[in-house]
Amino acid sequence: MTIRLRPSLWWLLVCVPVAASLEHWAPQRHTWVFGFACLAIIPLAGLMGRATEQLAERAGEGAGGLLSATFGNAAEMIIAGMALHRGLIPVVKASLTGSIVGNVLLVMGAAVLGGGLKHKHQRFNATAARSQATMLILAAIGLIAPAAFHHLAGRGALLAEGRLSLDIAIVLLATYVCGLVFSLGTHRSLFAGEGHAHPAEGGNRWPLSRALGTLLAATATIAWMSEILVGAVEETAKTLGMTEVFIGVIVVAIVGNAAENSTAILAALRNRMDLSVAIAVGSSVQIAIFVAPVLVLLSYWIAPQPMDLVFTVPEVLAVTLAVVVASQIAGDGESNWLEGAQLLAVYAILALVFYFLPG
Amino acid sequence: MTIRLRPSLWWLLVCVPVAASLEHWAPQRHTWVFGFACLAIIPLAGLMGRATEQLAERAGEGAGGLLSATFGNAAEMIIAGMALHRGLIPVVKASLTGSIVGNVLLVMGAAVLGGGLKHKHQRFNATAARSQATMLILAAIGLIAPAAFHHLAGRGALLAEGRLSLDIAIVLLATYVCGLVFSLGTHRSLFAGEGHAHPAEGGNRWPLSRALGTLLAATATIAWMSEILVGAVEETAKTLGMTEVFIGVIVVAIVGNAAENSTAILAALRNRMDLSVAIAVGSSVQIAIFVAPVLVLLSYWIAPQPMDLVFTVPEVLAVTLAVVVASQIAGDGESNWLEGAQLLAVYAILALVFYFLPG
Amino acid sequence: MTIRLRPSLWWLLVCVPVAASLEHWAPQRHTWVFGFACLAIIPLAGLMGRATEQLAERAGEGAGGLLSATFGNAAEMIIAGMALHRGLIPVVKASLTGSIVGNVLLVMGAAVLGGGLKHKHQRFNATAARSQATMLILAAIGLIAPAAFHHLAGRGALLAEGRLSLDIAIVLLATYVCGLVFSLGTHRSLFAGEGHAHPAEGGNRWPLSRALGTLLAATATIAWMSEILVGAVEETAKTLGMTEVFIGVIVVAIVGNAAENSTAILAALRNRMDLSVAIAVGSSVQIAIFVAPVLVLLSYWIAPQPMDLVFTVPEVLAVTLAVVVASQIAGDGESNWLEGAQLLAVYAILALVFYFLPG
Repeated sequence: MTIRLRPSLWWLLVCVPVAASLEHWAPQRHTWVFGFACLAIIPLAGLMGRATEQLAERAGEGAGGLLSATFGNAAEMIIAGMALHRGLIPVVKASLTGSIVGNVLLVMGAAVLGGGLKHKHQRFNATAARSQATMLILAAIGLIAPAAFHHLAGRGALLAEGRLSLDIAIVLLATYVCGLVFSLGTHRSLFAGEGHAHPAEGGNRWPLSRALGTLLAATATIAWMSEILVGAVEETAKTLGMTEVFIGVIVVAIVGNAAENSTAILAALRNRMDLSVAIAVGSSVQIAIFVAPVLVLLSYWIAPQPMDLVFTVPEVLAVTLAVVVASQIAGDGESNWLEGAQLLAVYAILALVFYFLPG
Repeated sequence: MTIRLRPSLWWLLVCVPVAASLEHWAPQRHTWVFGFACLAIIPLAGLMGRATEQLAERAGEGAGGLLSATFGNAAEMIIAGMALHRGLIPVVKASLTGSIVGNVLLVMGAAVLGGGLKHKHQRFNATAARSQATMLILAAIGLIAPAAFHHLAGRGALLAEGRLSLDIAIVLLATYVCGLVFSLGTHRSLFAGEGHAHPAEGGNRWPLSRALGTLLAATATIAWMSEILVGAVEETAKTLGMTEVFIGVIVVAIVGNAAENSTAILAALRNRMDLSVAIAVGSSVQIAIFVAPVLVLLSYWIAPQPMDLVFTVPEVLAVTLAVVVASQIAGDGESNWLEGAQLLAVYAILALVFYFLPG
Repeated sequence: MTIRLRPSLWWLLVCVPVAASLEHWAPQRHTWVFGFACLAIIPLAGLMGRATEQLAERAGEGAGGLLSATFGNAAEMIIAGMALHRGLIPVVKASLTGSIVGNVLLVMGAAVLGGGLKHKHQRFNATAARSQATMLILAAIGLIAPAAFHHLAGRGALLAEGRLSLDIAIVLLATYVCGLVFSLGTHRSLFAGEGHAHPAEGGNRWPLSRALGTLLAATATIAWMSEILVGAVEETAKTLGMTEVFIGVIVVAIVGNAAENSTAILAALRNRMDLSVAIAVGSSVQIAIFVAPVLVLLSYWIAPQPMDLVFTVPEVLAVTLAVVVASQIAGDGESNWLEGAQLLAVYAILALVFYFLPG
């Protein structure tokens, strides 16, 4: 295991300082900063994936998935919090949308496709997956309702809009807590996988301290690199002729979810679809009914102006369509490579819409 | 059993005359009239629930559920018919919306949550539940189609709107009759439950005459009290600063569905989920594809002007979202407490939207 | 078998020449041309159904379904191609919409109803059906996305609209190819049915050459008759007071899908639901993610102006609602007559909307 890690450690020892130095001494070289930050994040995501798998082995698949989702979203929460602090509310909303859509379509699509090419039929706990899919539907309703209110109530109801958003945020957070009690408490066994906790392919088990330490260090470094990357991505994209929304929804989300992507694909390749689906769908659920509502609440303290839950029509539509297709695929407890290709096709269609949509 | 009924009988002997007297001699004391009518309905709903369970024991779970849904909706049909007679079409539509949404979200949510807190996993016949869920989707399409037509065809197509509504009403009624032939005729066994017809917890079985007599008397008294309550609820609400639509969609619907609520929760607590789901979803289906179309047809005789099926955008959206989440939860033939919490969360979000929506 | 075919052969020897002669020498007698073309198509569809069943027996149910869907859609592709060549883009889009909606609602509805009246419960491979249903959802998203873009991006984005349509068409075609690799390659066994390939009721098996020859001749004659019929249907309908869109969506689609209708119903009556569902849903999928994108690409060569994927709001809504109800019904791998009636009821509601919608 140590031998397999060495190349990526070397890689990190190069990319992280280069990205940081460029950002400090040559911030105008956006494309280079962007490139090195990306190059740094990819092995970090892999490292994080391995550490998460080591911990997941101890915690059971579902709790391991929760763990992995939490650490995968820590970076996004920090980035979004900073953007919120600067009052960049449209960017926050675009990156939340991109993370929700990206996790269930891109991450789950890649995992199901990769796993399905190796294993003809893959199975996972349908009850757990449906429970997560229902959370996604709830999350979509939590975005549809304020957006519909915005268009139906008209300009005179801005005050009501803020109060409605706050109340819906509280309902979503309460449901998130219920979900935690369910998956970690009363129905833990559902999420514990069905005993196919074969040892990691590398064979050796890390000590708990090493797994935890690696996970924390990798998370912190990903957060740091992500921040550098996000700072540079806007300018980089401008030179490439993309809109800010496209960057938020697609680019930031892809990079921000590299960790989940790598862990979910690894898990799918090892035929541990319970873990893989828990990571992909769980991340989306967590962003939609935990991160987004928390940001709404936080915005009253840390932002120049409060953030509401009124997302734009393309954002709400993208989340709704992603949720519909993801529920359909996750609902029966089995997957194959075609379903992965279908998820990726929907992702491609939505990405094209955001790409061509005027800024 | 006689001993257990006595307190609620005493209760009724107080509340029913007090509500009726207040309404007659002090109709301006809206809040008191409202309060006593509510206090009268709650034990009546319980009494009705017991009588329905006694009959359901004889009739099989599905037919018992139909029975219960019919008697639960009798009150609503009378109320809606009276409002229609007075030309209060928006109030009729709001209370129909509230009943459809309230049954699948509030009633089913409370039943699934309550039942799930007592029993870890509950099962019900998935084929019967999916058949009812498909009826709900059909009902939603029956509301989406005229609303979409209204917005697409423009002002010049008012005449076509009425004819379209009439034709769709006939299609819905024909499907309702098909559903009855299916659940009471060709596929009765699907709805008969799986033989877990343990005797009612009280132990003793009522004679048929007592069960029927109690059911009829309770239904009639509920209808009477509901009418008094509805007459007072508008003024009561005005003093509380609510809109008429909110009253129709939420308050009238909650009170009108108290009977189903109590019966469905009782059934869920006794782990008879087939009966519980049949009541909750069956009531919504019955209101959407039987009560609503019948009111459209009746409006040509009893109303000052004909009623169409063009509901407002928030009403159609609420029904659609409720149907989507209810199908997702009812579709797999198993339930747990989290699903109940999720249904209630969606209900809370929709109720908030109607609460904040300007009148 | 020869004896059973003779009446329909006689029928064809009368109707085909009469329809062709009328169209040539008395083209102004639109109603007669229309009537005889219809009378010719009905037995042709039956003949085609028999030949397809003979081939399906050899090929396994799923591949047989694909075969049947391909030959059923050959006629539609020719008709649409000719309309496209003449620049009648709204007619092409209306007939594509009608074919997608008609196959999953009318054809599947009639097959499920007919089969269900003969057999109490019918089963089919749920994994294969869900895979097709997911393709339908993907197809609906492929229509929702450009229509939403059209309404969100405004008038200034016409160029982007064309490029977006082209790119989405390529994504859909790539997914279609993936679907073929899946159903004919890696997961062929899923679509091969479960060994209930009892011999055709007639008892005797046709030689391969006769089956293929009949299929090809019937397909060619159906294409010819369909063309005559489509040429006459517009004028016929004008005298009946219908709009062009209604003709495209409902009339052309019903006639164009007579072959699938007859084959799917025959298969359902013989309790071969795998074949029946594969034909109905497979035809819709093929039209949405193969025929439509191919026409978009072809339009750059054969049409006076390129065709995009921006369908009208009622068209997109009809496809979306049809897909939702079809996924719900196909998703559990079992069917009964009520589900057939429900599909037909949704078809009736959509047909009414298109009937009343101003031109």
